[in-house]
Parts: sequence; C-alpha cells; structure tokens
Amino acid sequence: MSFEQLWRDLLPVGRSAATGGYFRQPFLAAEREAAAWFAEAASAQGLVLETDAFGNVVAWWDPVPVVPDARGALAAEGERPASGREGAVLTGSHLDSVLDGGAFDGPLGVVSALAAVDVLRDRGVTPRVPLGIGVFMEEEGSRFGLACLGSRLATGLLPWETARELRDRDGTALGDVVAGGASTLLDGVTCFVELHAEQGRDLVHRGAAVGLASAIWPHGRYRFDFCGHADHAGTTRMADRRDPMLTYAATALAAAEAARSGDGMGPGRVRRATFGRLEVRPNGTNAIPSQVSAWLDARASSEVELEALLGEVSAAASARAARDGTTVRLTAESASGEVLFDAALTRRLAEALSGVPVIPTGAGHDAGILQQAGIPAAMLFVRNETGVSHSPAEHLTIPDALVGVTALADVLESLIT
Amino acid sequence: MSFEQLWRDLLPVGRSAATGGYFRQPFLAAEREAAAWFAEAASAQGLVLETDAFGNVVAWWDPVPVVPDARGALAAEGERPASGREGAVLTGSHLDSVLDGGAFDGPLGVVSALAAVDVLRDRGVTPRVPLGIGVFMEEEGSRFGLACLGSRLATGLLPWETARELRDRDGTALGDVVAGGASTLLDGVTCFVELHAEQGRDLVHRGAAVGLASAIWPHGRYRFDFCGHADHAGTTRMADRRDPMLTYAATALAAAEAARSGDGMGPGRVRRATFGRLEVRPNGTNAIPSQVSAWLDARASSEVELEALLGEVSAAASARAARDGTTVRLTAESASGEVLFDAALTRRLAEALSGVPVIPTGAGHDAGILQQAGIPAAMLFVRNETGVSHSPAEHLTIPDALVGVTALADVLESLIT
Repeated sequence: MSFEQLWRDLLPVGRSAATGGYFRQPFLAAEREAAAWFAEAASAQGLVLETDAFGNVVAWWDPVPVVPDARGALAAEGERPASGREGAVLTGSHLDSVLDGGAFDGPLGVVSALAAVDVLRDRGVTPRVPLGIGVFMEEEGSRFGLACLGSRLATGLLPWETARELRDRDGTALGDVVAGGASTLLDGVTCFVELHAEQGRDLVHRGAAVGLASAIWPHGRYRFDFCGHADHAGTTRMADRRDPMLTYAATALAAAEAARSGDGMGPGRVRRATFGRLEVRPNGTNAIPSQVSAWLDARASSEVELEALLGEVSAAASARAARDGTTVRLTAESASGEVLFDAALTRRLAEALSGVPVIPTGAGHDAGILQQAGIPAAMLFVRNETGVSHSPAEHLTIPDALVGVTALADVLESLIT
Repeated sequence: MSFEQLWRDLLPVGRSAATGGYFRQPFLAAEREAAAWFAEAASAQGLVLETDAFGNVVAWWDPVPVVPDARGALAAEGERPASGREGAVLTGSHLDSVLDGGAFDGPLGVVSALAAVDVLRDRGVTPRVPLGIGVFMEEEGSRFGLACLGSRLATGLLPWETARELRDRDGTALGDVVAGGASTLLDGVTCFVELHAEQGRDLVHRGAAVGLASAIWPHGRYRFDFCGHADHAGTTRMADRRDPMLTYAATALAAAEAARSGDGMGPGRVRRATFGRLEVRPNGTNAIPSQVSAWLDARASSEVELEALLGEVSAAASARAARDGTTVRLTAESASGEVLFDAALTRRLAEALSGVPVIPTGAGHDAGILQQAGIPAAMLFVRNETGVSHSPAEHLTIPDALVGVTALADVLESLIT
C-alpha cells in the first residue's frame, strides 16, 4: 500500500476530536488499536510478525521463507529457537504517544517503513538479508514513566526484574500487563535505521526535507520532592507558613533562567530545562500544600553542561527551601549520557542520500538505545513545518513525508542488497 | 453520652492509617459512615432527626413531643408541613473534611453539641423552645468545589438551579447525588451558635481555652488559567517557548509577596494568599505544558484590602504573561464579603461566659452563611494547640474540649430557657 493509504487508515486511531491531539498509551485501547492496524498492514504485505514478551513487535521481510519444521526441531532439542535473523537490517519506530501528542511522532517511521518495503518491491529488489520493521513499546514513557522502555528491555539494557515493578499512575505494574522475561527479537540484527519527524526547525532553517542525526544530547529526568507543612489557607499567617509551592515556583523560574542563560550561547551550546509535570498534595484550594512533587526534564549539548545546569537548579532549590522552611529531595529517575550514532553507518546513509545535512537532537529515541546496546544505529529526520512536537501543532507535509519514504527506501536498499 | 465516649466512636471514621489525616467527602463512604454515626448517637439521646433534600440534617430536642397526626392532617390538606420549629435555637457544625484534614474541624462542633445536650439534661434544664443540632453538608467544598454548600442551599442563598450543575472532579453532578429542591429545615430558627476548633493560635497567645468570633474576613477563590503552547521539552529552544508554567510560578511568588507585604503590618491588617490547587495539561515530564490552571485562595481584613491584594496578583500575572508569550484568564469562582456576627447574640454569649476574648477569623463557616441569610449567628472557638488546620497536625486537648462543651451548654441554656 502507498504511504497515503496507510497514513489515512492510521490517522483516526487515538485522536481526540476536541484537540486534534493523540493519546496512545501502551496496552490501552487506542494503542492496541494501532498495534492491530500494524499487524494487519504488515500481514497484507506478506511480512511475518514476531513479538516478544515485552510487547515489542517486528514484521519481517525474509529473503527466503522460514522453514517452521527446522525451527521447531531446534526448539525441541532444547536449543535457543532460531528467532534471530543473521545479518538482519531493522527499521521502524513506535506507535505510542504522549497525552495530546502529534500525529507523526512515532507513526511516521512505521508507516514510512511499510511504504518503503512497497517501493523496494516495485523496484524489484530482492533482499539478501532479512529486513524488519520494528514497533517498540512505550517509547514516550507516558504510562510507566520510563522513555524507550520497550527498546531498553529488548536490548537487555534494562533488567526485567527492575522494569516489572514500574507502575502507572493508577498503580498497575508493568509485570501485570506483559509476561516479561527475555527477548530474542534483536538477535542477529546488524543495524537499525529509524526515520522520525524532526522535533525542531533545524531542517526548516536549512531548507532540507530530510536530514541525518549525528547525536542525541545527554538528558535526564529528575524528581524534586518539595515538602512543607499543610495548613489552612485562610487562618495561617503568611509569616508562619512553610509552603512548598513557593519553593517549587522559585525553582521552576530558576531552572528556566539557568537554561536560558546557556541555550544557544556559543556554537553548538545547548541547555534545556522544563518542569512539565506536577503532583500537589492535598491539591485543595483552601489548603497550603504539604508536598509538591515536580519533574525536571533537562538536556544539554554535553554532559558537563548538563551537570552544570542540574547543579544550578538544585542550588536554587536548596537556597529557596532554606528561606521557606521547607525541604527538597532530588531523585534522578533516568539519566542518559550523550549518544553518538554509528559513524560508519551514518556515512553510508549520507552516501546513499547525497547532500543531506547531519544534525544533533535533544530528543531521546529507540535508535539511541540500540546504539548504546552495541547495535549500530542511525536516524533519518523529516522536516516538521512548525518544529513543534508533543502537541497537535506538529505538522509535516505529505510531499516531505514522501521524500522521507524514498530516502528510507534508498538507504534500506543499500543495506539489504 | 459523654464527650469522650462520643469522640472515641467518631475518631476512626475516615482516618488514614498512613497520615493520621481524614478525608470525608460528601456522600462518599467515610462521610456517610460519619452521618450514620450521628443519626445513631442523636437517636440514642432521644432526638428527632430531620433531613432536607440537600443532605443537611438537624437532630431536634423538642420542648413537647411533636404530634404526628396533627402534622399529617395539615399535610393532607395541602398546606406546608409544620417542619419549622418556632423560636428554635440551632447549634452544630459539619462532618465533612478536606483531603488529609484534622480530626476536629467540624466534628468538634457536632460532638460538643451532643455532649452539651447531655449536660443540660443533667442540669435538669427543660427547653422552652426547640434546640436543634445541625450537620451541614459539604462545608469544606472538597467535592463540589463550593464551601458551605449545604448551608448556602438550606438558607436559599444559593439557588438549586445553579447548584445542581456543580460537578466533582469525576464529573458527577450534585443533582445526580441529592434530590434537591427546597429546604424547610431552618424555618422558625431564631439563632445559630456554632462551636469550632480555632484555626490559628490567637487563643494560645491569649491564654484562653475558648473565645467568641467577631467577624469573618472577606475572602474569595479565583481560578487563573495560564495558556501557552505545548511543545517538546528537549528539542524546543528556550527562546522559542511559550511556557505557562513559568507564568504561573512567577504569579505564585508574586501572590505570596503581595500578601506578606501587608499581613500583620498595622493593627488588625491581614492579607492571605495561597495557591494550593493546580491542574497541568498535559502534565507529562517531557512536554512543555499547554495550560496550567491554578486556584488562588485570598483573604484580607477588609474588602478594600482584598481587592488591592487581588489587583496586585492579577497585575503580576499579566506582566509575566506578556514576557512569556502566554495568556492569563481570571475567573472569580466565589467571593464573600466581610461577615459581622450578630452583635446582640454575641453580647449575650459573652455575658454567659464572662471574660472570653472576641476575635476575628480568616476561615469561612456555615455560621457566616446563616448570618448573611438573616439568621442571627455567633461562634465559639476552642483553642488549637498547634494553630494548624486542614492538616493532621491540628490538635486540641481533651480538657480544652471539655471547657468548650461547658461553655456551649452555658450559652444554649441561656438561649432555650
């Protein structure tokens, strides 16, 4: 099927009529509907579906048919089933979304991969090695709180013993939702190429429809627990309060200032700090809060820069807590160092797509996880008109998306033939 | 039954084992259990229960037995049933609580009233007029968002047509929970005396176990909707953001400063400002919020002072919004002018309790609503060791509570004989 047909079918899944945004949380209705759409679309193309115990899926285009008897016989002898495909090339992305996210973040890579297989067949390409289209579970971390959860589990970077206890906001554990265990989905995979909508306007400024990724900046998620003293909003004198909301507010402003002072100041120097998630207790209009928990998302162009940024925010929080009579506790929920995509693979892609720009990104991706796990990875970005991401305002044109499909087909052809 | 027996029975209802705090939301399990406890305790004392269509309850100690036949006959003739008790004196308070509230806020007034009836009987008092113990629904506004909801409805200050559409955070309307209509519960009531735990340390500073209320300061609840632009926390340059969280944070700090600059500065001058409730959209770690809604609770010693305070907060919000590229919309959800309790009634109470201090309060109460509705009202406060309210740290000693019961019995005796 063509990109446009595939896109039309997937577009309504999980879209809010009110905002035009998407909410596809792992293992809940909308995301399961998207997963079913993928299984159907891949099967219609004659691809073979393989799933693992974490909810990750790969649709395989195998060079020769797999002989079930031979695989069954191996399994019967107690050896590892030959689920791995030696020399395999993997592409794909994810289908989950943040709350009120855009249409393209994730699905663009999956739909483009399906369309690229069609293009390759039209070109008469016969793969020398297996080509897989992967859909990784919970890339956004919108349900269990950890981004790239599926790829972290599939690569073994995150042990199942840790992950099974991750809980969503309703208290449901990941271990209650998936069987868990181990994954052989990536066995034999020699490289991963992820196509993704750009999250920024770099390609707009450069006047290019597609680009390649050089690196992912280091980033981390940090929970700040500001604790004070619950009290009556009307009767407690201002001077007697220990209000953690004020400590939080001062910290949020300090974080923005600390990031702003460095972001874009000097060549390639980047600092980003965001408090986008809050929990207030008891969260009542007439009650001074006892606790405010706030999550800081921080990224920077180097690890030194990230540490400096976090240090400045943390110092501001402590100083204000001393003034407010509150306390602050800092927990690093996740921290990722800089990821440099595979230089040889990226060079090969650049040769297949002469003249495309190579740019860094502040967003985490499954490709970064695979790269960290030792699977050479590269990324293709497609221009996003608004540069906006994690919002219904994210916008790509169909012509740009089609340039992306062609580019992906070109690089995959160079890798599988 | 004695105060201590009654208190022991009510104490576990709705208490969290984890925090020691209470959560009794109107018409949900814990509050219904407390209501059942009240019905049982009042019946055990031979009081006659009367409820209205809003969930308010009064337990009556009538001077002579009501003759059911006479009342039934009146009703049969199509006239208004004689539910009103001419010349009645009302006491009581409420049994609902904020989330993680203290044990005394509300229940103290109800338990003290039941115990005071016992004291009066021991004294051989025979009431000349009916004495009622009222339990008003949703005093805290913790479910449907409007404080003193039950008394506003019972007095007719709030029309049922407006109230029926109030919704809790799950979307349930008040009209789905109670029948609604009209109330005759307060017909014939000539005065209301509410005993309440002090929410502050005025009585501690004065070394008095009980005090009388002079007035309730003007106060209001205002919703600020800060709107910006949802975007990706990692890839959006600091300079390109329109982050409503920053506008909120600056407004919260400005509100505290504006209140602090006036609170206690000058004799009787009071200013309180609290942002205790927040809703963030989409509330994701890696998403710049599209909207932050924040509720300001503001109180002051005069209406001029309250207006000045709100003006300063609002100006700070607008100025910061201009800087952040966000917008701010202000909605007054409720606003109450100053309430002066009935001077003659308060004087009468002061005579019955010679030498007690008379103090103003920043907290709203059902007594304030009845006073506004033209029913002379007065309040008795009992010393709160910590001064803390709306928190498990609220604390009264049993000896002080017993002084309160005696004081209430004294003033009720002077009113019903």
